[in-house]
Amino acid sequence: MPGKVFLIGAGPGDPDLLTLRALNMLKAADVVVYDKLVSEEILALIPAGTEMISVGKCPRNHPVPQERINEILHEQALLGRRVGRLKGGDPMIFGRGSEEALYLMQHGVEVEYAPGITAAQGASCSTGVPLTHRGLATGVQYVTGHRQADKVLDLDWKRLADPDTTLVVYMGVANIGQIAMGLMTEGLSAGTPVMAISRATSASETRMISTLGRIAEDTRDAGLKPPTLFIIGKVVSLYVENPHALPVDAVRANG
Amino acid sequence: MPGKVFLIGAGPGDPDLLTLRALNMLKAADVVVYDKLVSEEILALIPAGTEMISVGKCPRNHPVPQERINEILHEQALLGRRVGRLKGGDPMIFGRGSEEALYLMQHGVEVEYAPGITAAQGASCSTGVPLTHRGLATGVQYVTGHRQADKVLDLDWKRLADPDTTLVVYMGVANIGQIAMGLMTEGLSAGTPVMAISRATSASETRMISTLGRIAEDTRDAGLKPPTLFIIGKVVSLYVENPHALPVDAVRANG
Repeated sequence: MPGKVFLIGAGPGDPDLLTLRALNMLKAADVVVYDKLVSEEILALIPAGTEMISVGKCPRNHPVPQERINEILHEQALLGRRVGRLKGGDPMIFGRGSEEALYLMQHGVEVEYAPGITAAQGASCSTGVPLTHRGLATGVQYVTGHRQADKVLDLDWKRLADPDTTLVVYMGVANIGQIAMGLMTEGLSAGTPVMAISRATSASETRMISTLGRIAEDTRDAGLKPPTLFIIGKVVSLYVENPHALPVDAVRANG
Repeated sequence: MPGKVFLIGAGPGDPDLLTLRALNMLKAADVVVYDKLVSEEILALIPAGTEMISVGKCPRNHPVPQERINEILHEQALLGRRVGRLKGGDPMIFGRGSEEALYLMQHGVEVEYAPGITAAQGASCSTGVPLTHRGLATGVQYVTGHRQADKVLDLDWKRLADPDTTLVVYMGVANIGQIAMGLMTEGLSAGTPVMAISRATSASETRMISTLGRIAEDTRDAGLKPPTLFIIGKVVSLYVENPHALPVDAVRANG
């Protein structure tokens, strides 16, 4: 009886933002293969006795190569086990989940999916800054601000520099200066509001409101580290730092 | 003691795709104000005895105007109640959730958020078609294919016609011919794969694989109705109709 792999999105960090399906899959798994970006609070939901395999990755430091992760998943499934493959965010958005799924399907292993709340959505619900808003943003775009193996960042600035679309940059800390310059060169105003948010929805969340003209310097001065998300566009103007009606918990998280 | 409003994403349809927070908020609410797009299965999770107020909306048929919805939420909160505002997908992505939140905050009403799996993510996990994939799509963009009150569709085709970005069109059934033409005029190939998916993740989900050159005719011939999502781009080439029925060799690595 062959096993199967559950490709599970852990969401942005807060365990409350797991989907019911993700939680059920974690409870049904015999073994969980997880990334570095998955929070302790989420790992704590996995039943005692479940085998845990860490394949944590950091930028420029890949302890377990992708090819080996693929093999681990395959090997575990061949043992007839239900394998939970737990990834931060949504495995189908910048998660390389589809690369793993493709490998597994090519080897005859069944894959089931649980999507996850992606970091942009976590940041949005945590701060109240929407991703679209009538009159401010007719759409939203997600891009990554870095390339594999430090290849050159080949983003199409002309296409991205749209004042009527919210632009969300994942993994952009190292290149935010180049990104801001590219967008301004193609016509986005230096006053375009930008929110940088690190570890959104987690207990250690930090936020910074800036502008396209200042964001590189502000990011450096604040010493922001990955994982940090940048939300660029007019929707950021809706951010309210401390509305009197905000719940006590949110005020504390914002402090 | 003033009430508060929970702005809750119902996700794409399958109740398993609710977040834990969304479910907890639905259970804690005294009254739930819900849209037409919320599935029966999700409404069934709301405890008996909870007051239910439908403000269902359809295209070209708005039984409850947005201004009145805002007032209803405010009135219910003034009664000191916990008000669940339940919307399909994610309230912060094409959900007008932030308009409601803004109105409520301006009237001193506390708002808390539960994000939802948006339709694009539901379609992705349901079909296995990723939204980004190394070598096929470096990012993803969500746009709407219609405008309020039947205003002209003013999308920037040049900016959207990027073969290296996945384009997801929400609410595009009526205008898919114009959308496909605009994208092809600006350089996207007529052979670009397109997936149309209706009611993704629900029991009545339907899918259609087509190309940019054929999608308008195929949509008409199939009689597709809202809510239908279009996923446009090379990632659609990864779609495998029935992976478990195919020999290993038949699983396509890349269209």
